[in-house]
Amino acid sequence: MNQVIVIGAGFSGIAAAKKLFEANIPFIVLEARERLGGRVFTKQLNQDLYLDFGGQWIGPSHDRMYALCEEFGIEYFETYDEGFNLLDLDQKVKKFKGLIPKMDILSLLNLDYVLKKLERMAKSIPLDSPWNHPKAMEFDSITLGAFVTSNCKTFACRKVITLALETVFASELNEISLLHGLFYIKSGRDLNTLINIKNGAQLHRIVGGMQTIIEKMAIPFKERIYFNHPVEKITKEKDDYLVTGRDFSFTAKRIIIAIPPPLAAKIEFQPMLSVEKRQVMDRIAMGQVGKCFMIYQRPFWRDSGFSGQAFADGHSPFQSMFDTSPKDGKYGIILGFTIGKRAREYFQKSKEERKKLMLDKLVCYYGRDAAHPISYEDFTMTDEAWSRGCYAGLYPTGAWTGFQDAYSKTEGNIYWAGTEASKIWFGYIEGAVRSGEQAAENIILNLSEGAHKK
Amino acid sequence: MNQVIVIGAGFSGIAAAKKLFEANIPFIVLEARERLGGRVFTKQLNQDLYLDFGGQWIGPSHDRMYALCEEFGIEYFETYDEGFNLLDLDQKVKKFKGLIPKMDILSLLNLDYVLKKLERMAKSIPLDSPWNHPKAMEFDSITLGAFVTSNCKTFACRKVITLALETVFASELNEISLLHGLFYIKSGRDLNTLINIKNGAQLHRIVGGMQTIIEKMAIPFKERIYFNHPVEKITKEKDDYLVTGRDFSFTAKRIIIAIPPPLAAKIEFQPMLSVEKRQVMDRIAMGQVGKCFMIYQRPFWRDSGFSGQAFADGHSPFQSMFDTSPKDGKYGIILGFTIGKRAREYFQKSKEERKKLMLDKLVCYYGRDAAHPISYEDFTMTDEAWSRGCYAGLYPTGAWTGFQDAYSKTEGNIYWAGTEASKIWFGYIEGAVRSGEQAAENIILNLSEGAHKK
Repeated sequence: MNQVIVIGAGFSGIAAAKKLFEANIPFIVLEARERLGGRVFTKQLNQDLYLDFGGQWIGPSHDRMYALCEEFGIEYFETYDEGFNLLDLDQKVKKFKGLIPKMDILSLLNLDYVLKKLERMAKSIPLDSPWNHPKAMEFDSITLGAFVTSNCKTFACRKVITLALETVFASELNEISLLHGLFYIKSGRDLNTLINIKNGAQLHRIVGGMQTIIEKMAIPFKERIYFNHPVEKITKEKDDYLVTGRDFSFTAKRIIIAIPPPLAAKIEFQPMLSVEKRQVMDRIAMGQVGKCFMIYQRPFWRDSGFSGQAFADGHSPFQSMFDTSPKDGKYGIILGFTIGKRAREYFQKSKEERKKLMLDKLVCYYGRDAAHPISYEDFTMTDEAWSRGCYAGLYPTGAWTGFQDAYSKTEGNIYWAGTEASKIWFGYIEGAVRSGEQAAENIILNLSEGAHKK
Repeated sequence: MNQVIVIGAGFSGIAAAKKLFEANIPFIVLEARERLGGRVFTKQLNQDLYLDFGGQWIGPSHDRMYALCEEFGIEYFETYDEGFNLLDLDQKVKKFKGLIPKMDILSLLNLDYVLKKLERMAKSIPLDSPWNHPKAMEFDSITLGAFVTSNCKTFACRKVITLALETVFASELNEISLLHGLFYIKSGRDLNTLINIKNGAQLHRIVGGMQTIIEKMAIPFKERIYFNHPVEKITKEKDDYLVTGRDFSFTAKRIIIAIPPPLAAKIEFQPMLSVEKRQVMDRIAMGQVGKCFMIYQRPFWRDSGFSGQAFADGHSPFQSMFDTSPKDGKYGIILGFTIGKRAREYFQKSKEERKKLMLDKLVCYYGRDAAHPISYEDFTMTDEAWSRGCYAGLYPTGAWTGFQDAYSKTEGNIYWAGTEASKIWFGYIEGAVRSGEQAAENIILNLSEGAHKK
């Protein structure tokens, strides 16, 4: 019999499976899709052209991710980050270098004030128990959006902070609890790390795409992964769990849930999970982001001293753009992020219209050289039934103070993983891996204690 | 073949079915439970003792509910509302008459100010499109809780308003968008109506319990209702929809969804619903309330001039209590509402402990006469897999402005009903009935237009 059933073959589930495999514990992985990776998905367009449709970056303190690269001999390289960035505000496009765009002095002072205030507040959040912060109730009764609105005194400052934070969270800011925003920032070290490329969470990319890593991780136990196996029901029967789907059933002593919260909420548990777990799952919704790629023969913008980075207010469909060309520079690829409402509007248009919208922006930014791409691709996890959104599940107001750590808590022998169960790098691939490994380690510990008792 | 499949046999689904039946349109109703009523559930304890575990009141402008009572000759009676109410604040219990408790003058002025401000703001919300209010973004970026905190200057005022609003919404106030709060108030006429018994939404009760109505409504088409039929998947096949569950499948030309939003979110739709519908369903969570009943030989508190109504701060498990004795006064029944966090804590205790907690409160309020009840019963829809909470699904911040009326919108030939699809009396049984009737009428209209075209 299986000791463990892991549900979900994203980074979290496969990191758990790897640990179990190494500890010689019998397990299987049940995955709803026909592929590995979950919210990481590298699309191979041709032999040397790939696009990361899902998570794609790693950076400082992503210790587990770097360790995996090391272990599997996977090459990574620095995200291109030289030259001028662009700020596209109020229909005007301005060049700037570094992190802070050119603005009037009042806006700059305001920007500095708000960023520092956010950093300071985030620093004070106890990662293990955000609800224990002295001002937890206050921070959990307002949204990150309301905080930004009331602290930004100039129009330009508010727009710049909003588009930066929307890019960080992949969400409208009025959907996120301020307390969750602060927790999230602390969980990823600090705001500076989250926003930055250099020394930040966007420092490195993977040669061949992020999925390369998970493919290698899964090789030793590939035959234990059952694809096209969406789990519908988990029933406790004496000491075992019966895990069933439309046309399968398996039993195990222990379960690891490594899927997004809204999908975990769809599984029928018998007996029911705790009221806190059920209710917090009903409250956590997924962020919404689309990734749009314009592919050129070469990264021509670099020649004119542009970084490929651009940041825009609501006049553009894209909050932010990045140079995501491959390491060898064989292609030039601009990645545009469209987030929240902008994403919903964008993806209601046809692919031709979407391509045109992005092309128009790029021609506006980089001139006529931008008018002749090889191709255009885009993707949004929002339309993926087995993700329901990206990057992560976000806590609305009242959830942290009302339900505390109910989401990540083990119930019976059901263990919770997935990036939303991580206190470190919540919302990032690093958090997914950590939570998966942690769940597996808890089971291994639990089993060895059980063995000692016998 | 069925023209219509109605999913859910609560008041909304059965109201829809009734209209379809009267219009001679072939339909079936699929219900997950083995009973009618959904969030209305009358528990018959013995021949003349019943408890309304779910919705139980009707009041002014519940036109459809009164019409149903008329149609089926169902008797209703006025909720007992005479004598002294109690306010249990800061460990002190004070008597008061009418709507406004005795407090210091500052708190009274503050209370008056906040209630009037809420009334005024609610009045300005366009029910058809809350997102079109000039301050929609502002109101949708903060919570009802933050509004109360920042407008209540005295401790007593804040506590009184909080427990009153928690009773109205069955939710912690920091989980609800202020915009949704205002919409909800307007949807139920005004705050005064929502809070009041006399001339308010709690004016009348049903002799025999609320479920009496739905039982009578369903009699003519009872054989068309399939109980224990939880729907798992709805697949569009050319012009038809295939509706499937674990061991059944039916087809129809049109579907009415008349279940709570988090349950609608669990159904797999092929092709997928619009992104707005999917995402807003992931965001709407259910309120949380427990109903607790202490049953006595007779309503003895009336003898001493008490109404049986009591309102309490967090020292009590119960935000509010009401006299819910039957019309003939044959029993005396106090109903306690425990809401939000208080409810979650309360239902983690054993039934014996819960009984003791309520008994202690009642003895404190009404003396030793309260010490000897016949029995104690309680119930919470939060623990019902096919409700997930009560009274209703509530919009968190960002949902109305981000997704507008996506929840109630018809998609293809799938029509949305349920109280959360109603603009009038959203969250009430009246809203459920109206939305169900509306969905059926839209289908009937649509069919007759189709017939004319031929």
